[in-house]
Amino acid sequence: MASNFFDHTATIAYEGPDSTSPLAYRFYDKDRMVMGKRMEDHMRFAVCYWHSFTWPGGDPFGGETFNRPWMHGDDALSLAKQKADVAFEMFRILDVPFFSFHDVDVAPEGASLSESNDNLKAITDIFAQKMESAKVRLLWGTANLFSNRRYMAGAATNPDPDVFAYAVGQVKAAIDATHRLGGANYVCWGGREGYETLLNTDMAKELDQLGRFLSMLVDYKHKIGFSGPILIEPKPKEPTKHQYDFDASTVIGFLRKYDLVNDVKLNLEQNHAILAGHSFDHEVKVAYANDLFGSLDINRGDDLLGWDTDQFAMDVKEIALVFHEMLKHGGFSTGGLNFDAKIRRQSIDPDDLLIAHVASMDACARGLLAAEKMLAEEALTKPLAERYAGWDKPENQAILKGETSFEQVAERALGLNPQPRSGRQEYLEGVVNRYV
Amino acid sequence: MASNFFDHTATIAYEGPDSTSPLAYRFYDKDRMVMGKRMEDHMRFAVCYWHSFTWPGGDPFGGETFNRPWMHGDDALSLAKQKADVAFEMFRILDVPFFSFHDVDVAPEGASLSESNDNLKAITDIFAQKMESAKVRLLWGTANLFSNRRYMAGAATNPDPDVFAYAVGQVKAAIDATHRLGGANYVCWGGREGYETLLNTDMAKELDQLGRFLSMLVDYKHKIGFSGPILIEPKPKEPTKHQYDFDASTVIGFLRKYDLVNDVKLNLEQNHAILAGHSFDHEVKVAYANDLFGSLDINRGDDLLGWDTDQFAMDVKEIALVFHEMLKHGGFSTGGLNFDAKIRRQSIDPDDLLIAHVASMDACARGLLAAEKMLAEEALTKPLAERYAGWDKPENQAILKGETSFEQVAERALGLNPQPRSGRQEYLEGVVNRYV
Amino acid sequence: MASNFFDHTATIAYEGPDSTSPLAYRFYDKDRMVMGKRMEDHMRFAVCYWHSFTWPGGDPFGGETFNRPWMHGDDALSLAKQKADVAFEMFRILDVPFFSFHDVDVAPEGASLSESNDNLKAITDIFAQKMESAKVRLLWGTANLFSNRRYMAGAATNPDPDVFAYAVGQVKAAIDATHRLGGANYVCWGGREGYETLLNTDMAKELDQLGRFLSMLVDYKHKIGFSGPILIEPKPKEPTKHQYDFDASTVIGFLRKYDLVNDVKLNLEQNHAILAGHSFDHEVKVAYANDLFGSLDINRGDDLLGWDTDQFAMDVKEIALVFHEMLKHGGFSTGGLNFDAKIRRQSIDPDDLLIAHVASMDACARGLLAAEKMLAEEALTKPLAERYAGWDKPENQAILKGETSFEQVAERALGLNPQPRSGRQEYLEGVVNRYV
Amino acid sequence: MASNFFDHTATIAYEGPDSTSPLAYRFYDKDRMVMGKRMEDHMRFAVCYWHSFTWPGGDPFGGETFNRPWMHGDDALSLAKQKADVAFEMFRILDVPFFSFHDVDVAPEGASLSESNDNLKAITDIFAQKMESAKVRLLWGTANLFSNRRYMAGAATNPDPDVFAYAVGQVKAAIDATHRLGGANYVCWGGREGYETLLNTDMAKELDQLGRFLSMLVDYKHKIGFSGPILIEPKPKEPTKHQYDFDASTVIGFLRKYDLVNDVKLNLEQNHAILAGHSFDHEVKVAYANDLFGSLDINRGDDLLGWDTDQFAMDVKEIALVFHEMLKHGGFSTGGLNFDAKIRRQSIDPDDLLIAHVASMDACARGLLAAEKMLAEEALTKPLAERYAGWDKPENQAILKGETSFEQVAERALGLNPQPRSGRQEYLEGVVNRYV
Repeated sequence: MASNFFDHTATIAYEGPDSTSPLAYRFYDKDRMVMGKRMEDHMRFAVCYWHSFTWPGGDPFGGETFNRPWMHGDDALSLAKQKADVAFEMFRILDVPFFSFHDVDVAPEGASLSESNDNLKAITDIFAQKMESAKVRLLWGTANLFSNRRYMAGAATNPDPDVFAYAVGQVKAAIDATHRLGGANYVCWGGREGYETLLNTDMAKELDQLGRFLSMLVDYKHKIGFSGPILIEPKPKEPTKHQYDFDASTVIGFLRKYDLVNDVKLNLEQNHAILAGHSFDHEVKVAYANDLFGSLDINRGDDLLGWDTDQFAMDVKEIALVFHEMLKHGGFSTGGLNFDAKIRRQSIDPDDLLIAHVASMDACARGLLAAEKMLAEEALTKPLAERYAGWDKPENQAILKGETSFEQVAERALGLNPQPRSGRQEYLEGVVNRYV
Repeated sequence: MASNFFDHTATIAYEGPDSTSPLAYRFYDKDRMVMGKRMEDHMRFAVCYWHSFTWPGGDPFGGETFNRPWMHGDDALSLAKQKADVAFEMFRILDVPFFSFHDVDVAPEGASLSESNDNLKAITDIFAQKMESAKVRLLWGTANLFSNRRYMAGAATNPDPDVFAYAVGQVKAAIDATHRLGGANYVCWGGREGYETLLNTDMAKELDQLGRFLSMLVDYKHKIGFSGPILIEPKPKEPTKHQYDFDASTVIGFLRKYDLVNDVKLNLEQNHAILAGHSFDHEVKVAYANDLFGSLDINRGDDLLGWDTDQFAMDVKEIALVFHEMLKHGGFSTGGLNFDAKIRRQSIDPDDLLIAHVASMDACARGLLAAEKMLAEEALTKPLAERYAGWDKPENQAILKGETSFEQVAERALGLNPQPRSGRQEYLEGVVNRYV
Repeated sequence: MASNFFDHTATIAYEGPDSTSPLAYRFYDKDRMVMGKRMEDHMRFAVCYWHSFTWPGGDPFGGETFNRPWMHGDDALSLAKQKADVAFEMFRILDVPFFSFHDVDVAPEGASLSESNDNLKAITDIFAQKMESAKVRLLWGTANLFSNRRYMAGAATNPDPDVFAYAVGQVKAAIDATHRLGGANYVCWGGREGYETLLNTDMAKELDQLGRFLSMLVDYKHKIGFSGPILIEPKPKEPTKHQYDFDASTVIGFLRKYDLVNDVKLNLEQNHAILAGHSFDHEVKVAYANDLFGSLDINRGDDLLGWDTDQFAMDVKEIALVFHEMLKHGGFSTGGLNFDAKIRRQSIDPDDLLIAHVASMDACARGLLAAEKMLAEEALTKPLAERYAGWDKPENQAILKGETSFEQVAERALGLNPQPRSGRQEYLEGVVNRYV
Repeated sequence: MASNFFDHTATIAYEGPDSTSPLAYRFYDKDRMVMGKRMEDHMRFAVCYWHSFTWPGGDPFGGETFNRPWMHGDDALSLAKQKADVAFEMFRILDVPFFSFHDVDVAPEGASLSESNDNLKAITDIFAQKMESAKVRLLWGTANLFSNRRYMAGAATNPDPDVFAYAVGQVKAAIDATHRLGGANYVCWGGREGYETLLNTDMAKELDQLGRFLSMLVDYKHKIGFSGPILIEPKPKEPTKHQYDFDASTVIGFLRKYDLVNDVKLNLEQNHAILAGHSFDHEVKVAYANDLFGSLDINRGDDLLGWDTDQFAMDVKEIALVFHEMLKHGGFSTGGLNFDAKIRRQSIDPDDLLIAHVASMDACARGLLAAEKMLAEEALTKPLAERYAGWDKPENQAILKGETSFEQVAERALGLNPQPRSGRQEYLEGVVNRYV
């Protein structure tokens, strides 16, 4: 079952910071303990199927560049198996604990929904078998409700209820497969749940459709005993002009409206964050402020471009700040760091796939270690607590508890002349630079 | 009480589309009936105090350009009265039914909160007197919680509870003044309710503070019998890096979380919409989809710039689409079209103020008339209804009503092969062009 | 040779502003005289081959939606002929005077450069024959140097000189074909002449390569007697992170550096303009200010999105301002309005192609007529001349002619206290609204 | 002459990477040798006068926060001297070798140009005296041609030639002062050389005015024997909608057009780069590719905001890549790292000024050291050279030298089938992460 695809076939090992090999870990030391947990258990890296094994390297102005052997041939199921061999070999080489997939990444679409479902079941069997002897587990599965032309106007939010129904059928098969493989979460990314133009869109109706779809899915998840959360992945635009799951705050408001906050959480991504005008850290903090943090797609966008580049995350500082927030809340529970990242279309050597993952896993590991140290030394948490200390006084706690009226506070204010204090931003930026 | 400020002093009249005068209305014909209401009652134009009478023409790279006489002198209250004379003269010349103000626009800040409150009361008396003989009414009042350095780190979301209290004291005086003057709404724009850096910010705590502030304000509003809604005005950034009232969806989620949806509505603005990555029309539709539409700040931003330019709205098509949505819902109730718009700092002639309002009021009136015609001819509504007609079938209504399970729909899907239908975007764009 | 592709087959006629048909011209009245020239000769509309006949409706997240019959089959040349039949039928139905194409749009790529060249020649023969009996002429041809994976790192700017050579070979065939068909211009769009990352890029070297490539092409053009200009089409990004032909100013600087200003001009596009942070009007004015205006790709981008949407131009005001500038300079010479615009991928009905072109041609015609009227009435030109009138004085002309020294002007300044005058922006915006 | 302004008064010393003091250098070790030059001589840090001593902490939505003692009082010249005392004390505490200023930063504007010039001369005398006993030298001077309302429509590009003349008078005084103080460069930032709307703008005329202005200035510079270059600082927008000095490429094209490339170079800034859609590194490479690199304003913008935030640079990786390019070209000659950076308006403690500079100088020093190491180990330069090695072959050199015709290259191409090679982006990103 060796795939002969990669030049480098040994499992990547930790060699320490002085290593200059692009195929060794310099910081990712899976058994190192970080705040009481093994690094591997903290980071819960997952390789994604779509970018690494399904994307041929095309972009809107050019076609395939990778020429992967499993993308050319007539027997779709046989090609899917060949692809799975390479995928599992890569999981082994990278020594990652998780992977993730869309239904159509792993199994070919059939001529009908039934045939597609059958293909997915056949591949699920193969995966189950492979997973018996492999270390890798499933972080999450999902259904692709955006590539086929039937979904061009959305899936759950389609003007045609038959498309809605078809989407239900497809998601049912996908969550069944995820459940069978022991997936820790099930993800919904609303690829075309949005609009191209408001001229042909009934937004209120579409939002109700989407609320209904998710409510039904939550019911079904409970029925089959799937214990992981449903995760929604916010993204503001692309492919559609506007997507309803614009950002964390928008999704959270939606979940409250449709009474879904107990069963649905957020899967956040750096590139989607910046497309919405937010930092990665911001989105994570919004999720925690609402008890809805679920999982992360780890990648990075280009700050100067207006589309999803899904590059491998390499910015240690950005990652450290995200982990700093996560560690304050105990880190991941069911979630993980899913590599929704793709090598550039010019990175056509097979081992570029390995090199990219190794470099980014190391950047993440450095971020984790920096966050651990900042927390241990209270580098940021102590100044923060001091800044808000005034609110700990009983009379101010009373305000927050709703025990004081507007008039009472206004009356008290007459004697006040509050003086501003330095926000110390540059000091804090300098502090962070000491850790990364 | 004539101010001798403007060159043009006659009340601006409707002259019809062929007029070439910049000081005549070509489309704004206040008594013309539009869907059963006078145009004036539909549009409810308000002149804002801050941009027109308080802003000296400065920007971050340069100072005053306007040299208004009421901005130079020693006796603050006397200057405030001089300013009010010019303001009421402009309301009369433009023949607008409403105006709007911040506390600090109309009355000078004192050395203490008490003194500021006294100043505001003194000016309120003067306004009340002027309004007896004038046509103009108050669309809304608000408090400026962002210019004074005490608010540099926010008002309700300040780390210092004394600043929170001071803000309560100031808002109480402002809503009292608004109530006394018969204001139709009270507005909260969260100028610095946000952050400059997450390094010094406890977001969860600050959001709770903001929720508490608004809950107290709502209680107070009921206590004094203020019948209009509290309006929140979303804006994503500027002056702070991130403002908590990012956009309509974010504010709506916030209102749901803190149980404020019955008393608080939205005041939307074109320029704030595009800074958040949305069209004006989008924000309006989001508000209506959640029954939270309140009022509009009418202006426009520059699509190619990343800050709030607050230019006078001149795009008939954009306005027509907003009115098209509003007319479907019956138009404004307490809200109106508030000119949160400023002339360019190079427009230094006094009459530039008049010319700008006239040109924009006319663009809005054309938009209203275009919307009326599109609705009457069902130019957009009929294609929309046809597109979603499938959802009217009983089996699909059953889905939306929650009478069908995920499995049942999935089962039904097995027999389906839905075919996409044209979204007809270019056709619809061509249709709109027929009306504007 | 009827293609049976469109439902509507009659040539689209002018019906006047009151027509409500989406398949009639309301403003485009080809024989109407505008400033001494027929409207058709002013606007010089061209249908582009790539978006209308070659693009299958895919985007980065989904595949084909259009299912055009000529995109499915085994015999590439036969499919190319079928496509040409539909294309020429559409030219006839729309009654447009021009079309445009890339080599690979019209002829299939062969297994080698020779074979590709042969295919192009075969199609050129067919086109030449069709053009004998058709009205349509060729506005410009171009070579696609970005889709094939060999060009993934650029064509003229490729690190591999063999790719440079291959690009030369391909462009030679394309300009030969353009010349044979009587093309009025030859266009270079630097699709991947740029970089994905500076880490692997020698910018100085690549710019020299590009300069050399164009110099050789200019020499060749003269050698074969091709009298039209070479046009460069600026675009800042997409597909690459940064493209060397960023915007009009950048290209103009490049042309000066490599001494190409006499033979190369600019082909400007609205969507590329806004991606670079400029208005369409701005780019046109930059080109005229440098005597390098060539032609226009007429489309529009979405102001809120960061990628090239290439939508059909529908904004009359924007177009009017462009024509206003063009008419001041006499309008097009070799250039024209090339529809580098694509219907949305949801516009899957064949006639959507016709409807989109008709709606946009009408928007352009309205823009032209508005520009004509503004010029005739000196609505903008008179205020402009007045604003700069001071420079007409002899002492100020002397400055511009270089007859005065810095010290002399500084000396004169000591007696001056210049007073600013109103920029009258809102007045001028109101004036424009009277015409559109 | 001690100012008693700062709490910390000792000269900041190098303490090494383990220091946790915000008032010690951890990496900036001025005497450490880097590629044969002292670190201080490499980096040539300059403190700027405007942000640190002239800006009161205001923004468009709020006024002064800093309450500097020298900003409040009646005797303008005496306040200017007080400000100078604090400034020179800060130069001493930070131990920086350079400073920079605008005329109006250091001397009050008078009632006439003569009076302003006199004020500037008076302050120049004081500065000259202070510089005798201080270490600090002048990196550059400049004139503020954008704050006074007379410049609201531009200076050199003003429609009023009297404003042009006034600007000449002001710049003459500023370059005279710069020359007298031994300034190494003279800078022109075209603050309002651009437009707010094209409706009132004659772009071609204004560009000619600007070209003439600079030509006269260059003549004058030679006349007085000022040996440093004139530097233009590109910025795309803000305060105006569009500024003619948009970015490096635009300015370079302008300099070529008006024949100024021998005397004028570029002063580049990170924040201006990203506002134009470019990376800092990109702008630097463009300048070097055209032999027009001059100096740097060192700061950073916020990637998610659309205006100039001028924050202190803290990103080691970004700085390292800029120094990597600079060191390849020998580093600065007359230029330096000018801190065109301002503390946040909430950083109201005097020592925040020191802390910000120290943290950013350290980030820059780390960047320099990383660049030195990358160059020494050829980490990036070797892969780069290999990637372009094909161009070293004689037949390809012949192409670049213009010894080969288009047809010859096309002929050669017929035998070629070039195969793409990996761009290795992720590998290179991983390499950089090893150094920062």
